[in-house]
Amino acid sequence: MKIKRIRTAVGPISSEIRNAYISFSTMTINLVSVELDARIDGSPIVGYGFSSNGRYAQTGIIEERFAPRIMAADPADYNDENNATIDPVKLWSIFMSNEKPGGHGDRAHAAGALDMAIWDAAAKLAEKPLWRLLSERFNDGRYDEEILVYPGGGYYYPGKELDGLKAEMQGYRDEGYAYVKMKIGGADLALDIKRIEAVIDVVGKGKYLAVDANGRFGLDTALAYARAMEPYGLFWFEEAGDPLDYHLNATLCEHYSGPVATGENLFSHHDGRNLLRYGGMRPDRDWIQLDPALSYGLSEYLRFLEVVDSHGWSRRRLIPHGGHQLALNIAAGLQLGGSESYPGVFQPYGGFADNIKIRDGYVTLPDDPGIGVELKPNMIGEMRRLLGYE
Amino acid sequence: MKIKRIRTAVGPISSEIRNAYISFSTMTINLVSVELDARIDGSPIVGYGFSSNGRYAQTGIIEERFAPRIMAADPADYNDENNATIDPVKLWSIFMSNEKPGGHGDRAHAAGALDMAIWDAAAKLAEKPLWRLLSERFNDGRYDEEILVYPGGGYYYPGKELDGLKAEMQGYRDEGYAYVKMKIGGADLALDIKRIEAVIDVVGKGKYLAVDANGRFGLDTALAYARAMEPYGLFWFEEAGDPLDYHLNATLCEHYSGPVATGENLFSHHDGRNLLRYGGMRPDRDWIQLDPALSYGLSEYLRFLEVVDSHGWSRRRLIPHGGHQLALNIAAGLQLGGSESYPGVFQPYGGFADNIKIRDGYVTLPDDPGIGVELKPNMIGEMRRLLGYE
Repeated sequence: MKIKRIRTAVGPISSEIRNAYISFSTMTINLVSVELDARIDGSPIVGYGFSSNGRYAQTGIIEERFAPRIMAADPADYNDENNATIDPVKLWSIFMSNEKPGGHGDRAHAAGALDMAIWDAAAKLAEKPLWRLLSERFNDGRYDEEILVYPGGGYYYPGKELDGLKAEMQGYRDEGYAYVKMKIGGADLALDIKRIEAVIDVVGKGKYLAVDANGRFGLDTALAYARAMEPYGLFWFEEAGDPLDYHLNATLCEHYSGPVATGENLFSHHDGRNLLRYGGMRPDRDWIQLDPALSYGLSEYLRFLEVVDSHGWSRRRLIPHGGHQLALNIAAGLQLGGSESYPGVFQPYGGFADNIKIRDGYVTLPDDPGIGVELKPNMIGEMRRLLGYE
Repeated sequence: MKIKRIRTAVGPISSEIRNAYISFSTMTINLVSVELDARIDGSPIVGYGFSSNGRYAQTGIIEERFAPRIMAADPADYNDENNATIDPVKLWSIFMSNEKPGGHGDRAHAAGALDMAIWDAAAKLAEKPLWRLLSERFNDGRYDEEILVYPGGGYYYPGKELDGLKAEMQGYRDEGYAYVKMKIGGADLALDIKRIEAVIDVVGKGKYLAVDANGRFGLDTALAYARAMEPYGLFWFEEAGDPLDYHLNATLCEHYSGPVATGENLFSHHDGRNLLRYGGMRPDRDWIQLDPALSYGLSEYLRFLEVVDSHGWSRRRLIPHGGHQLALNIAAGLQLGGSESYPGVFQPYGGFADNIKIRDGYVTLPDDPGIGVELKPNMIGEMRRLLGYE
C-alpha cells in the first residue's frame, strides 16, 4: 500500500468576526489530500484533511518538508504488519523526521492537517468511520453514540451588542444546541456582564453558558472577571490569560470556584503535560481543550491521551477545540467529554455532517467511512476545487 | 522614513553533520532584506537578517503574513517620535498583528529573521554598530569590549570518533578559542565518556568543555550521564531532555552539582519565563540559551530580559544560541554572559566578522554600522545573490 501523491492548498476562511485578540478578515487554513494506490468500488482512495481556524495556512511546511519525506520513504516502513493498510502513526514519524524538538507552532498545524488526511485515508481503506476505527483500535470497542457539542460563537455586535448576541444564541437553541459559548474581553467588564446576563436570558441558566477570553487577560483582569462571573454558575471560564502562563491559570483556579477551560493554544503533548503539571487544573471540574487538528494531528493526540491517563485524569474532561468532524470522531471513538462546533462560522469547514441533527445539545454520528468530509458537500466541493481535482 | 520593500529567500546550509536528534543534510534558513527610502553616502539603506541553524526556512510566513502587514502600515505608525528613524519594536507589533498567542515555532523563526533585518537597517540608519545602539538605548551606554565565545561543534566522526573529535577541538584551540562544546547522546554513555576524556586531553581541563545532548535523553539517561560526567567539572551539561520538560530539567538540577544549560528550543519570552518558573535553574551557575534569531528577534528578546530581571537573575547567565553576529551584538551591548559561535559549520552564516580574532576565548567587536553582515563578504555575497540583488 503506497501513498501516490500529496496535494496541498490554501483554504480561505475570512470573515468579519473578531475575538478579544485578533480579526479573522484575512484568515486561511491548510487543505491537504493524500492519495493511495488502492481503489474501493472502482474509485481511488483519497484522504482529506484541513486545519482548524485561527492559525493561517502554512502549505510550505507540508510541501517543502513533510510531503517529500513521505514520498521518499519505502512503503514497507509505513504499512502495517500484514501490508493491507497504512499506519498513520508510522507515517507521522516519517514526515516528522529531522524536525527538532520544541517549537510547536505552524509546524504543528501543518502536521495536523496532513495527519488528518492520512487518518481519513486509513479509515476509508478500512471501510469504517474514523470513530469506529479508533474505538476498535484504541478503546476496546467502546464508543459514545451521543456526543455533547456546543457552538463556539457569541461574538461582538458593535452597535447592537445585546440584541445581536441574543439573536445568535436563540439561533443555536433553535438548531438544537443546549450549551453555548460567548466571547468576553473585547469590551469592558460591565458590558460583558450585561452580555452574559442577556445570553442567560436566552439559554435559561448559567450552566449552559461558557465564556471565552481568548488569552487576553492579565492576572488582575482575570480575577476581576472571575469575581464578577462566579455567581452565575457558568459552564466554564475559558483561556483567561496567555496560553503558556500556567501560573496565571493556577492562580485563577485558586480563586474561582467555577470550572475553567484552556488548551486550544497548546500544540503538543509536551505543552499539554505542562498544563497538567503547572496549570492548577482541577480534575473534578476543569476542561482541557487541546485541538488535535492544530497539534500535530490525532497521532500526537494519542500521546496526549497517555499523558492524561498517567496523570490520573479522566478523558471525559477533554473537549477539543476545532468545531469540526475530526474532533467529533475522536470524541466519540475515544469517549472524550464532547466537541466544540462551528455551525455558522469558518464555513464551509465548521460543523458536522449536513444531515446530522443536534438534539438537546447532543449529536449522533454518521456511519460513512472516513472522517465524513463527503457528508458536507459544500466543504468537499470547495476542497476538491482548491486542491485541483475539479 | 518608510520601508520600501521586503525580500525573502531560502538559504541552504546543508551539511553532513548530525546531532543526537537530526541530520542537517537538507537544512535551510530564512534570508530577509528590508529596504528603506533613505540613503547614506549615496547608497540605499538595506538591512539584512537570517535565521539560526536547525529549523528550516519558512519564507511563506514572511511573504504571506508579516511583510504585507508592514507594507500596508502607515509609516507614521513605525517611525519614532522625531521621524528620523524606524522603531523596530513598533514594526514588530505591526507585523505580528492578527497572530494568536501561543504556538511559538516556525512563526518565531521567520519573525526573528525579519526583526534582525529591521534592526540592521535601524542601526545603519543611525550609523552605529548594533551593539552600540543597544548599549545607548537599553543599557545606559555600558557595553563589553570583550565577549566570551565558544564554538558549537564536537560532532560525531563515525569510524574515527576520537581522532576526528580531537582534531576538530585542536583546530578551535588553534583559532584562539578556550571554551569548546561537543555533542553527546549520539553514542552510548561509555563511548561518550571516552570522547569527553579525549577532548579534555586537548583543552586541558573539564571547565573548558561543555556537552550538549540536544534534548535527546529521558530522565533515567540524563541522570546516568550526570553521575558519570560530574567528576569532570564540565563547563555545562546542555539540553538533557525535551526542551519543554521543565520537570526533567529541575530533577537534573537537583541531582547534578555542575552547571546545566538550556533554552535554545524555547522561542518566546513566555517559554523562557516557564523555564525560570519551573525548570529548577540555579541563578549562581546555570546558563540560559534562548536564541533571539529564532525567537521572534531582538524585539522579543528585550521582553525576555525583563523577565530575567524580574526573576532576579543576572543577564550574565545568558549565552544565546545561534553562533552569529546578531547574538554577539546583543551579548556585547546588553552585557550578557557570552555568545555561541559556529566558526566552521553552517557557513557562510556561522561565526563573526572575518577580520575579528579570537583571543583566549574572547572576541572583540567591529565598529562598522549595523549588525556587521558586510564584514563577512562570503555571507553577504550569497545573501545578496539569493535575495536577487546580484
